[in-house]
Amino acid sequence: MRIFNHSTAETHRASDVEVARWEQFGIGNAMPFGAMWYTVPAGATTSPDRHPEMELSVVVAGCGAVRAGDSVSIVAAGDAFLIDGDETHLVHNLSPDPLLVFSAYWLVERNAVGPRGEVASDA
Amino acid sequence: MRIFNHSTAETHRASDVEVARWEQFGIGNAMPFGAMWYTVPAGATTSPDRHPEMELSVVVAGCGAVRAGDSVSIVAAGDAFLIDGDETHLVHNLSPDPLLVFSAYWLVERNAVGPRGEVASDA
Repeated sequence: MRIFNHSTAETHRASDVEVARWEQFGIGNAMPFGAMWYTVPAGATTSPDRHPEMELSVVVAGCGAVRAGDSVSIVAAGDAFLIDGDETHLVHNLSPDPLLVFSAYWLVERNAVGPRGEVASDA
Repeated sequence: MRIFNHSTAETHRASDVEVARWEQFGIGNAMPFGAMWYTVPAGATTSPDRHPEMELSVVVAGCGAVRAGDSVSIVAAGDAFLIDGDETHLVHNLSPDPLLVFSAYWLVERNAVGPRGEVASDA
C-alpha cells in the first residue's frame, strides 16, 4: 500500500490555484492516468484550460461552478465531472472555504485508451 | 462535460457499506479504469477485500484507518491510498460521520496497463 498525503504534498501555484501533481510520487508507470490535487481559493476562478487529455475531477471539499463549453454545472463535495479532450473548462469556487479537487487525466486516441502506461504530464 | 452526482447515484449495500458503482453511468469505454464511491458508517469496518485490480482510493469525507497486508495507515479527507493487485485490504471509519471514498481500479498485467479500455467490474 502507498499513501498520498494531501496536506504534505509539494505544490506549485498557477495564478491563484495551488496544484500538487502526482509526478512527485514516482508512480506514473503503475497508473493508467496522471493525477493531481488542486485548490481554488474562496471566490477565485481557475484560468480557462484546454488539453487533449480527458479529465475526471472529484470534488473533495467545497462547492463550485464548472464551465465546459457552453455548459455550467454546480458541484459539491463527492460529486465528479468529466471533461472531454480539448474541451475548454474552468472552475469557480462558490464556497467560503478552499475548493479542493482531485483530478485524473489520460489521453484518448480514437475512443480508445492510449498506449500502455502512457500518462500525460501537461493536462 | 458530464456530471456524476454522488448524492443521487444508485447504490447497493455490501454488509455495512453503501456502494455506488459507476457502471450505472455507462461511460466505461471512455475511462481507463472502473470507479465507485463507497460510504462506511461511523465506527464500521469494510469486509476484507482482495482482487487482481490495483485500486486508488481518494478520501472525500471523514477519517479512517486502512489496513493492507501488515500495514495500517490513517487517512483523512483529501488523502489517497493505492492498493496493489491481490493485496488484502480493509477500511475502518474512525470518524463520527460517514466515511466517503472515491475509488478507481484497473487491471495491471506484468506491470503494464491492461488491454485498451479494459476495466474490471468485480474489484
